[in-house]
Amino acid sequence: MELLQKAIQERGTIIGDTIVKVDSFLNHEMDTALLYEIGQEFRRQFQHKPVTKIVTIEAGGIAPALMAGLAFNVPVVYAKKQKSLTMKGDVYIESVYSFTKQVHSNVTISKDRLSPEDHVLIIDDFLANGEAAAGLISILNQAGATVAGIGIVIEKSFQRGRSRLEELGIEVVSLARIARIGEGKIEFLNS
Amino acid sequence: MELLQKAIQERGTIIGDTIVKVDSFLNHEMDTALLYEIGQEFRRQFQHKPVTKIVTIEAGGIAPALMAGLAFNVPVVYAKKQKSLTMKGDVYIESVYSFTKQVHSNVTISKDRLSPEDHVLIIDDFLANGEAAAGLISILNQAGATVAGIGIVIEKSFQRGRSRLEELGIEVVSLARIARIGEGKIEFLNS
Repeated sequence: MELLQKAIQERGTIIGDTIVKVDSFLNHEMDTALLYEIGQEFRRQFQHKPVTKIVTIEAGGIAPALMAGLAFNVPVVYAKKQKSLTMKGDVYIESVYSFTKQVHSNVTISKDRLSPEDHVLIIDDFLANGEAAAGLISILNQAGATVAGIGIVIEKSFQRGRSRLEELGIEVVSLARIARIGEGKIEFLNS
Repeated sequence: MELLQKAIQERGTIIGDTIVKVDSFLNHEMDTALLYEIGQEFRRQFQHKPVTKIVTIEAGGIAPALMAGLAFNVPVVYAKKQKSLTMKGDVYIESVYSFTKQVHSNVTISKDRLSPEDHVLIIDDFLANGEAAAGLISILNQAGATVAGIGIVIEKSFQRGRSRLEELGIEVVSLARIARIGEGKIEFLNS
């Protein structure tokens, strides 16, 4: 997605060899017009799938997932990173490790919010090692729901997330695929 | 907003005398069509103000804020509840207490993301005691930005949030105002 690659190049900040900070348009300040287009692009990429629901994980995934939900006209469920006092009753739960924050979190979705009839498109802002996506897949498996595919805004193709998910037989579509970060430059794969 | 009151009545779950759980359409599963209308309604309510940016707080505020940002065609910034490793550099910070989760959080916004030229509409999912909103106002004051107003999806009018914010001279618009929760019923104020 050219508009997105342009935003990453021009408005992202490179930190070391593995991190590009996109706080200026994706996951702190959010460019609403760009996110709208991201939602539309996910719709185009997965229009062959019978998507009934979109699932993501707080907080970075909420905006692109919501815009995809708007494009598909389906509800969006975001997994929570800790059990709150108002989240009573039964939940599906999975432990997920964040390399960025260096913490384990319990990721939960209420059992009420998923059914075996659901065809779920997973959306997330980043794919690196695939920890979050694998956690969500485990939760969807617990619910007996079908994983329709995984849509990612920015993939770090030099990390193992994509191959790990493809080994599970799941279709992965990333709107921007970063081949390499280094010497102040970002190189993209043509997806 | 009638559509929203209807959703709260029909799809909300009452817990005790103070909590209505809206996990089925607002802050776990999200009804994208309803949230789109919520964004449009915030635009109508605040169209007299020169809004340049929308500010909210993760995670519950992100969806209504993003839809308001889409309606106003302005960027949205969400305050983070803890400082992550990729959030380097200077941040504005304020401590906020959550009665629901019974924890204090440090709420932060990067200094890069706000300027004294900004006219900021604060959006949040709930207004109860006004802790989160007061924290965001403090951050906007630190940045020298103008608070254009506060837009709330669901106000618990039996708690002190609104009066606390109005005492600061700030316009508060809530799309649903709950007068009373009890005996399995929700009563609304006509706003």
